[in-house]
Amino acid sequence: MSPGFFDYLKEKQTLISKALERYVPRLNNFASRLTEAMHYSLMAGGKRLRPILLLAGAEAVGGQARDYLPAACALECIHTYSLIHDDLPAMDDDDLRRGKPTCHKAFDEATAILAGDALLTLAFELLTHPELLARVPCERTMQVIRLVAQAAGLQGMVVGQMADLLAEGRSVSPEELDFIHRHKTGALISASVTSGAILAGGKKEEIHALERYGWAIGRAFQIVDDILDLVGDEKLLGKPVGSDLKKKKATYPALYGLEASKEKALSLVQEALEALAAFDHKADPLRDIARYIVERKL
Amino acid sequence: MSPGFFDYLKEKQTLISKALERYVPRLNNFASRLTEAMHYSLMAGGKRLRPILLLAGAEAVGGQARDYLPAACALECIHTYSLIHDDLPAMDDDDLRRGKPTCHKAFDEATAILAGDALLTLAFELLTHPELLARVPCERTMQVIRLVAQAAGLQGMVVGQMADLLAEGRSVSPEELDFIHRHKTGALISASVTSGAILAGGKKEEIHALERYGWAIGRAFQIVDDILDLVGDEKLLGKPVGSDLKKKKATYPALYGLEASKEKALSLVQEALEALAAFDHKADPLRDIARYIVERKL
Repeated sequence: MSPGFFDYLKEKQTLISKALERYVPRLNNFASRLTEAMHYSLMAGGKRLRPILLLAGAEAVGGQARDYLPAACALECIHTYSLIHDDLPAMDDDDLRRGKPTCHKAFDEATAILAGDALLTLAFELLTHPELLARVPCERTMQVIRLVAQAAGLQGMVVGQMADLLAEGRSVSPEELDFIHRHKTGALISASVTSGAILAGGKKEEIHALERYGWAIGRAFQIVDDILDLVGDEKLLGKPVGSDLKKKKATYPALYGLEASKEKALSLVQEALEALAAFDHKADPLRDIARYIVERKL
Repeated sequence: MSPGFFDYLKEKQTLISKALERYVPRLNNFASRLTEAMHYSLMAGGKRLRPILLLAGAEAVGGQARDYLPAACALECIHTYSLIHDDLPAMDDDDLRRGKPTCHKAFDEATAILAGDALLTLAFELLTHPELLARVPCERTMQVIRLVAQAAGLQGMVVGQMADLLAEGRSVSPEELDFIHRHKTGALISASVTSGAILAGGKKEEIHALERYGWAIGRAFQIVDDILDLVGDEKLLGKPVGSDLKKKKATYPALYGLEASKEKALSLVQEALEALAAFDHKADPLRDIARYIVERKL
């Protein structure tokens, strides 16, 4: 990774956290508990991968990160909603996330369900934010709303989560595992980086290249996630390892073994870097993110 | 009500149900259970009030209903998602809705949570549907996406549901009850009729008038809902009456009594009709809907 990469990550994480404070309201009325729960989960120490990918995607085609913060925050809202709902007792039933009680543990189930619903809805409100509309032609923003809705919905995340739950407790085929990974993680990660490029007016071939990049790092990310759940450091992860095994979740290491999984993740990073071949130094953060994804410990 | 009104309702309900069949996908893959659950709840016999209001709002300002079907379906998706999540054990814990098992009873809790999430997400995908974009200028559609996101989210429905849950089991002030009603039901009903007018290019003063109309019928609708839960016909409603009382829900009749509630609903209908004073016969369906809302038995 480039020498300045961790400063870049830190700087972008701070930018996004501040933007979330600004763009996510705090209600001061009968329902204030709802926005407390939303802020609790938004500020629970996430890596901000998806919003950073959006900003880095915009920068790679010559855009200014600061112009697209409402859209970046929208992606973090969608990601956070998906974690809140996935942690619910009826779903993965997790008590801890990043070392803190999950939303339904810190609040209650009803509040967690509604906080997730509110974050998902807010994401689309943020994608129509006046600050965004003032800087981006309407047609481009509309294209991004469509892309994000598809990637979070019936062509992506929700479908992946359904397939993942249905696969629990039994062996899955390579085809099914690939389906789960592509939908559960790949679609939204890919949409994040391409959304940035679309908003910033990237050319068609740039957007296609970033889409290839996004799918590759999305798969790599999920494989590394599965590896960390097997052999990661509980303290760093802030949750118990081995939970996939216990729940008999469909994972890459379970199907192919640990070594083959590591090799696959590394080869996907190569694929991602190759997709960026035609880009100049402005895509260096994306290159670093790809390398970081396989080297991360949390 | 006008002689042809029930034919109008029936015609629009058929139009919307057919459109939902067309616009809501049926997956044929590892996650097909998800779209089965979505279709199950979408086709469970709803009145289609919100999509009809959108179409009637468009017609009132001179638009053609058929041009805005993806947006009408989006509203029904949002309404249906809210019912699915409200019925969950952690929320209102209802087993029956419109005489049929609720989504989590017919499927399971995890599927119901995800079906709700998928319907909410699909709503925003439908609001960017190519058929809609081909007929409506981008800026108008963007305005509607923002309006719908606000009405379903932190300026509306989710907030109302949170406040409603927090008010359970204790007495509420008139101010709090008004807050709950305006957010839980009023916001989305008002957004439905104004969205139609915005999409069809209504003038500013027309949109404002329809907004006033929407808020009035929204309040009337909720008051009648509360009345029906007290003295309605279980067979027609398809659910047990008295459930609000049992759950100690904040309702209008509980606070003001049955007679005062009926009078209030009727005066709100008058308010709604007055808001339509400047409209010609093209707003007759909206006038009939306002009257129908207080006369309905389900």
